[in-house]
Amino acid sequence: MDAATWIAAVSIFTAGLTIAIGSIGPALAEGRAASQALQAIAQQPDAANTITRTLFVSLAMIESTAIYCFVVSMILIFANPFADLAIEAARQAAGG
Amino acid sequence: MDAATWIAAVSIFTAGLTIAIGSIGPALAEGRAASQALQAIAQQPDAANTITRTLFVSLAMIESTAIYCFVVSMILIFANPFADLAIEAARQAAGG
Amino acid sequence: MDAATWIAAVSIFTAGLTIAIGSIGPALAEGRAASQALQAIAQQPDAANTITRTLFVSLAMIESTAIYCFVVSMILIFANPFADLAIEAARQAAGG
Amino acid sequence: MDAATWIAAVSIFTAGLTIAIGSIGPALAEGRAASQALQAIAQQPDAANTITRTLFVSLAMIESTAIYCFVVSMILIFANPFADLAIEAARQAAGG
Amino acid sequence: MDAATWIAAVSIFTAGLTIAIGSIGPALAEGRAASQALQAIAQQPDAANTITRTLFVSLAMIESTAIYCFVVSMILIFANPFADLAIEAARQAAGG
Amino acid sequence: MDAATWIAAVSIFTAGLTIAIGSIGPALAEGRAASQALQAIAQQPDAANTITRTLFVSLAMIESTAIYCFVVSMILIFANPFADLAIEAARQAAGG
Amino acid sequence: MDAATWIAAVSIFTAGLTIAIGSIGPALAEGRAASQALQAIAQQPDAANTITRTLFVSLAMIESTAIYCFVVSMILIFANPFADLAIEAARQAAGG
Amino acid sequence: MDAATWIAAVSIFTAGLTIAIGSIGPALAEGRAASQALQAIAQQPDAANTITRTLFVSLAMIESTAIYCFVVSMILIFANPFADLAIEAARQAAGG
Amino acid sequence: MDAATWIAAVSIFTAGLTIAIGSIGPALAEGRAASQALQAIAQQPDAANTITRTLFVSLAMIESTAIYCFVVSMILIFANPFADLAIEAARQAAGG
Amino acid sequence: MDAATWIAAVSIFTAGLTIAIGSIGPALAEGRAASQALQAIAQQPDAANTITRTLFVSLAMIESTAIYCFVVSMILIFANPFADLAIEAARQAAGG
Amino acid sequence: MDAATWIAAVSIFTAGLTIAIGSIGPALAEGRAASQALQAIAQQPDAANTITRTLFVSLAMIESTAIYCFVVSMILIFANPFADLAIEAARQAAGG
Amino acid sequence: MDAATWIAAVSIFTAGLTIAIGSIGPALAEGRAASQALQAIAQQPDAANTITRTLFVSLAMIESTAIYCFVVSMILIFANPFADLAIEAARQAAGG
Amino acid sequence: MDAATWIAAVSIFTAGLTIAIGSIGPALAEGRAASQALQAIAQQPDAANTITRTLFVSLAMIESTAIYCFVVSMILIFANPFADLAIEAARQAAGG
Amino acid sequence: MDAATWIAAVSIFTAGLTIAIGSIGPALAEGRAASQALQAIAQQPDAANTITRTLFVSLAMIESTAIYCFVVSMILIFANPFADLAIEAARQAAGG
Repeated sequence: MDAATWIAAVSIFTAGLTIAIGSIGPALAEGRAASQALQAIAQQPDAANTITRTLFVSLAMIESTAIYCFVVSMILIFANPFADLAIEAARQAAGG
Repeated sequence: MDAATWIAAVSIFTAGLTIAIGSIGPALAEGRAASQALQAIAQQPDAANTITRTLFVSLAMIESTAIYCFVVSMILIFANPFADLAIEAARQAAGG
Repeated sequence: MDAATWIAAVSIFTAGLTIAIGSIGPALAEGRAASQALQAIAQQPDAANTITRTLFVSLAMIESTAIYCFVVSMILIFANPFADLAIEAARQAAGG
Repeated sequence: MDAATWIAAVSIFTAGLTIAIGSIGPALAEGRAASQALQAIAQQPDAANTITRTLFVSLAMIESTAIYCFVVSMILIFANPFADLAIEAARQAAGG
Repeated sequence: MDAATWIAAVSIFTAGLTIAIGSIGPALAEGRAASQALQAIAQQPDAANTITRTLFVSLAMIESTAIYCFVVSMILIFANPFADLAIEAARQAAGG
Repeated sequence: MDAATWIAAVSIFTAGLTIAIGSIGPALAEGRAASQALQAIAQQPDAANTITRTLFVSLAMIESTAIYCFVVSMILIFANPFADLAIEAARQAAGG
Repeated sequence: MDAATWIAAVSIFTAGLTIAIGSIGPALAEGRAASQALQAIAQQPDAANTITRTLFVSLAMIESTAIYCFVVSMILIFANPFADLAIEAARQAAGG
Repeated sequence: MDAATWIAAVSIFTAGLTIAIGSIGPALAEGRAASQALQAIAQQPDAANTITRTLFVSLAMIESTAIYCFVVSMILIFANPFADLAIEAARQAAGG
Repeated sequence: MDAATWIAAVSIFTAGLTIAIGSIGPALAEGRAASQALQAIAQQPDAANTITRTLFVSLAMIESTAIYCFVVSMILIFANPFADLAIEAARQAAGG
Repeated sequence: MDAATWIAAVSIFTAGLTIAIGSIGPALAEGRAASQALQAIAQQPDAANTITRTLFVSLAMIESTAIYCFVVSMILIFANPFADLAIEAARQAAGG
Repeated sequence: MDAATWIAAVSIFTAGLTIAIGSIGPALAEGRAASQALQAIAQQPDAANTITRTLFVSLAMIESTAIYCFVVSMILIFANPFADLAIEAARQAAGG
Repeated sequence: MDAATWIAAVSIFTAGLTIAIGSIGPALAEGRAASQALQAIAQQPDAANTITRTLFVSLAMIESTAIYCFVVSMILIFANPFADLAIEAARQAAGG
Repeated sequence: MDAATWIAAVSIFTAGLTIAIGSIGPALAEGRAASQALQAIAQQPDAANTITRTLFVSLAMIESTAIYCFVVSMILIFANPFADLAIEAARQAAGG
Repeated sequence: MDAATWIAAVSIFTAGLTIAIGSIGPALAEGRAASQALQAIAQQPDAANTITRTLFVSLAMIESTAIYCFVVSMILIFANPFADLAIEAARQAAGG
């Protein structure tokens, strides 16, 4: 079961690393946008509605890159095509 | 039990690394947003309600990327599909 | 099945790394653009329409580089020509 | 007892690294929020109550990411499922 | 099929790395240009047309360096001359 | 006594690294908070009491992340469950 | 075909790395120049013609360093003199 | 005496590294706090007493993280439980 | 043909790395000079001629360091004296 | 004398590294405090006495972290308990 | 021809690395000096002559460090005394 | 003479590294203090005496950390106790 | 000729690295000094003579550290005492 | 002559690295001090004498750390006690 083990180990390590590294950028970017929105509200309270709306659209857009990473991470753990092939091959070898 | 050991070692290392690296970005981003909110309140005390509400929504959004990392970390420790397969295979080999 | 295993392991690792690293730049850039847009709205509320429109076009342009990475990442997992060749070769060797 | 040793070594190393790296971000973020709160109090002493309250809620939120790391670190040392399996296996092998 | 495997593994890894690293610079640069354009519009709404036109030409120019990376990445996956040679040689060796 | 040696070496190295890395963030954060408090006192001497009280609560909160690291470091040296298991196993092997 | 494989692997890796690293500097520099041009137009709309002309000449000059990298990258993939020698030698060895 | 040698080498290296890395953060933080205190005295000479007192409490708090590192460093050199066990085991092996 | 292969691999890798790393500094420097020139024109439109002339002389001077790298890169690929010696030696060995 | 050699080599390397790394932080911090003191004297010459006294107390406090490193460095060279044990063991082995 | 190959490989790699790393500092420094000169001309057009003359002398001085690197790089490729010795020795061994 | 060679090699490398790394911090700190002193003299020429005296005391204090490194470096080259032991042991072995 | 080859390879690599790394600091420092001189001339054209003279003395002083590196680099290539010894030893071994 | 070769290789590498790394800090610090002196002269031309004198004393003090590195570098090349011992031992072994 050596091939499947290698692929599993690489998948686990990559899944964790992907979401870990992939959350740095979006988090910092959301923090920047949110902090600027708060400053903008303090500076121009009358425009709070426009600012909040623009903020949430932007946060959603930034969050999307974190979600790409989360999706790839989940695919690698739960729907990994290479791992499926390797496990199937290992089963056939064991059953053959 | 070599395959399961490898997968366990990689899972443990990845679980810790994921939440460790994954907490840097959100923490810094929350610190930035919170610090800016405090400055905004000091600058415009009348808008404190709007600022606090926007701050908490933003903090929740930023926290979500840390929670992605925590979820992946917990999955790797307690619900790791690769580890389950490897442990089951090791048991069958031991029982065969 | 050694060749296919190597290629699978490299593909998995690269797919995760690509989207993880590739999301840092776009996320930070979108955060910067969005934060500046919020400041601009606070400074000049009358130009909010022009600013928002320019912001969304810019976000789409920046997002495109993240999408390049996501596309390459998906190709490596689900439509990898090298992996197809290796798997086919492994099947022929097993069936030969 | 080779498998259990490997897992123990990896668990120890990861537990320490997790809390060590995981304390950098929250500490810096708390320092930033606290320092800004002090500046805000100096700038607007009348709003000290609102500022202090918002500060403590924010510190608790930021501290939560450090606590995620501490929890993972404690799990790896005292409630590690992989280590339990490996130790049990080693005992069975020794008793068999 | 050892030579083709090596070349495939290197091609996959390089393709991912190329677009991942290659998207950092352009994304940050586009974010900077876009954020400055938004500030410029807020400062001088009358010049919005000139600013927007200059912005889009600049974004296209910056995007070009990301496209160089994307082109190289696609060539390495789908039109790699070294891989074609290696695969052909492997087929001849298998058919010889 | 090979297993216990490995675990001891890893525990020693991790204990030192944990407190070393783990003291960087809190120290810098406390320095920032303290320096800002001094500036705030100079700017608003009348609010010195509120500032000092908020400063000490914040310092205690920041210090807590350093104490997490110190606790993990002490556990690894003086109450390491893995090391206890390994030493006990080594004694049994020597006495068997 | 070992020599040709090594040279091919190195060429592929270098080609990708060259354009990936080589696009960071020019992209950031173009972003800086473009962003400053937009600010200059907002500050002095009457000089927009001179500014735009100087901008485009500068962008072309900066782009030239990215093109050096692209040229070297293309030479390494499609017109690599070392690879040609190695492939020819491998063919002669195979045909000898 | 191989096990004791390994543990001794790791202890020496870790002891030095711990205090070396662990002195960077506190030193920089103390420098920052002290420099700000000097600026505060220059700005508000009348509050010199409050500033100096707050400074010394803060310096003591920051120094505490350096002292954690120094304590761990000294424990590793002069009161290392793992080293004691290993040396005792080596003596028994030599005397057995 | 082992010696020539090594030299070829090192030459290819170095040629790419040289121009890739060597283009970062000049590109950033040109971006800085150009961006400052644009700001200078906006600030003092009457001196646009002197500024543009000084800019182009400076850009040429900065570009020279990029050209040094490009020259070394081209020498390593197309006029490498060590490679010529190694290839000649390999031919004599083959023909001897 | 293999064990003593290893320990000696590690001690030498660690002693140098400890004082080298450990002098960076204190030096920079003292430079910062001193430079701020000079600025404070220039700004408020009448408070020169208070400033100089506070500066020297702070410098002594900061220097203490460098002295921790120097102490550990000297202990590792001239009073290393592990080295003493190893040398004694080597002498006994040579005299036995 | 093993010795000569090693020396050739090291010379090629070092020659490229030397000019690549060695061009970063001078390029950035020239960019800084040139950009400041442009700002100075815009600020004080009457002193353009003195500024331009001082700029060119400074650029020449800075360029000199890049030229040191270029000279060493060329010496390593075309006038390498170690390579000459090694090649001569290899010829004598071949002719002996 | 293997042990003495190892110790000599480590001592040489460490001696150089210690003074090289150890000169970065003090040099930068002295540069900062000196530069601030010059600015302070320009701002308050009447306090030049106090400033210069405080500067020289501070420079001496900062220089002390560089001198710690120089002392350790010289001890490692000319008065290394481990090297003396190893050389003596090698002589006895040679004379035995 | 193995020893001489090793020494030659190390000398070549070190010579290049020394001047490459050693040119970064002086180049940046000269750029900073020159850029500040240009700003000073623009600010105070009457003091151009004093400024230029101080600039050239400072540039010469800074250049001296680059020249130390160049001298060491040249010594390692053309007057390396270790290489002379090794080459002489190799000749004697060949002629013996 | 193996031991002497190792020591020679390490000495050469360390000598180059020492002066290369050791010139970064002093060069940058001298650049900073010199640039501040030029600004100070422009700001207060009457104090040019005091400024220049303080500058040269400071430059000499900073240069001293570079000279420490140069001295160690020269000692390692021309007066290395370990190398002398190793060469002498090699001669005795050859003459014995």
